[in-house]
Amino acid sequence: MNILITGGGGFLGSRLARALRARDASARITLLDVAFPAGLDRDFTCVTGEVSVRATLEKALGTDTGSIFHLAAVVSGGAEADFDLGYRVNMEGTHALLEAARELAQPPRVVYASSVAAFGGVLPEVLDDSTTPAPQTSYGTQKVIGEYLVADYTRKGFIDGRSLRLPTIVVRPGKPNLAASSFASGIIREPLAGVECACPVPDSTGVWILSPKRVVEAFVHAHDLPASAWPTTRVVNLPGITLTVREMLDAMGRVAGGEAVARVKFVPDARIQGIVKTWPVRFATPRALAMGFRPDPDFDSIVRDHLENEVLA
Amino acid sequence: MNILITGGGGFLGSRLARALRARDASARITLLDVAFPAGLDRDFTCVTGEVSVRATLEKALGTDTGSIFHLAAVVSGGAEADFDLGYRVNMEGTHALLEAARELAQPPRVVYASSVAAFGGVLPEVLDDSTTPAPQTSYGTQKVIGEYLVADYTRKGFIDGRSLRLPTIVVRPGKPNLAASSFASGIIREPLAGVECACPVPDSTGVWILSPKRVVEAFVHAHDLPASAWPTTRVVNLPGITLTVREMLDAMGRVAGGEAVARVKFVPDARIQGIVKTWPVRFATPRALAMGFRPDPDFDSIVRDHLENEVLA
Repeated sequence: MNILITGGGGFLGSRLARALRARDASARITLLDVAFPAGLDRDFTCVTGEVSVRATLEKALGTDTGSIFHLAAVVSGGAEADFDLGYRVNMEGTHALLEAARELAQPPRVVYASSVAAFGGVLPEVLDDSTTPAPQTSYGTQKVIGEYLVADYTRKGFIDGRSLRLPTIVVRPGKPNLAASSFASGIIREPLAGVECACPVPDSTGVWILSPKRVVEAFVHAHDLPASAWPTTRVVNLPGITLTVREMLDAMGRVAGGEAVARVKFVPDARIQGIVKTWPVRFATPRALAMGFRPDPDFDSIVRDHLENEVLA
Repeated sequence: MNILITGGGGFLGSRLARALRARDASARITLLDVAFPAGLDRDFTCVTGEVSVRATLEKALGTDTGSIFHLAAVVSGGAEADFDLGYRVNMEGTHALLEAARELAQPPRVVYASSVAAFGGVLPEVLDDSTTPAPQTSYGTQKVIGEYLVADYTRKGFIDGRSLRLPTIVVRPGKPNLAASSFASGIIREPLAGVECACPVPDSTGVWILSPKRVVEAFVHAHDLPASAWPTTRVVNLPGITLTVREMLDAMGRVAGGEAVARVKFVPDARIQGIVKTWPVRFATPRALAMGFRPDPDFDSIVRDHLENEVLA
């Protein structure tokens, strides 16, 4: 099988690549991204460029590409700061990718990373599978538009698409990024690395969370499900767990001690708060659970996994 | 005030232009379309071209354009038959128009003609303001994407947008077109003109209807409402009335006699039925009614209006 992962240079994309390789050593996997960490090209074919550029897509896709994982995106804070860039990459890039996919010999299976940033505005206490997306950011808008494109290209038989609305992924390794949700990983990652961390939101702020491990499982599971498992809609809200910042810090305290928690300082940031407060916090996800997607059991295990795999590894 | 109407060469666009001129004789009105009926350029500035073409938009927009009515679209059957054309005009054209609008000196008021083709799939018996769009055509997909673009450009302060989901407009004058809904006007218009008409759907088919008169009123009303009337969402389902084809023919019989009804022949068309059966038929529209939008009182009055204004005029 020939597989393309857009955003393959990112932390989720490269983890997904390793997971796909681990279950099929013969898989030919191409990663497309604007930049790559050193060494990734030892294991995978790496194509550097933007997903909105036709020539880049042609380089990244083989006529025998059977599966596409579309993770490439300008993140929420980035798309809000640079309106043109966000539309070019997130909307036009997704459209360009689907157009290129449409020309393949066989309709490829396409797994699209959407986001709970799809939701916003006046929301019910608990969102569910019937909640209408009403994004309050350009990033969320672009993600919803991508979902509708994936659905229509699927309906026409050009692709076999599946869109996943990702919770906030915690703990992300690496450096803070422009995502407005960057703090949700930072308040765990930085203290565990012995570094102080500024938290831009109050500790009562709720976050809808899924771990890197579980979201990679979800990408693979979404890909492997037969088309018949998606009879009425090609988009699903992934399951997660809801925690406040305070509950996250308490879990870190239990797993790693109070000195880690003491490294978090609260430094309010109105711009970040303005974005984060529009995001939904609580979901019922009966459809995803029935389809076999899984949330994390608790936040303590997420902290432990991060310690074992990223800090002590 | 300088006003642009895209799709201004069409029947709704030109009616809207006359309505806007009637209430303000000094209004400078520009119509943009791919073609115009003869004589329209006596009363309005007519710009010929496609809404997706930047140079055409620059010709159609003045720096002082304060209001834009965006009606231009490849219709449902057309967008289904020509996938590329539909996306170019309906999605990329709307995006291009909003980009051009963003560069105006003042954020213009933008009224966007969306459609109940936004809805489809597994639907409740009666749709309402909370029903999530799940279009089953490319046209419907493109209209929903346009709504999300209008909402995001409004949120950013680039425009002051309002999207209206139009019911099927009956009775359209003129010739049958590629819209899958073309029959809903044809079964009234053709018999009243003494012409036989093939109806491609069974007489039990339900249609959600608004008259040309009322939809022009709705465009103007949506434009005139203050921004504060759209606090939580910039899209509204317009009110309409639900009728079966049989009920429509019965009304025509009451108004114009049985010989008109006898001119309708039922000639099933699987392609048209396949599209029409995905459309919703019954709505509750409390929000639109509270905002002052009005449905037609009954279908008899729609038939009478058509007779008086189009057939006997």
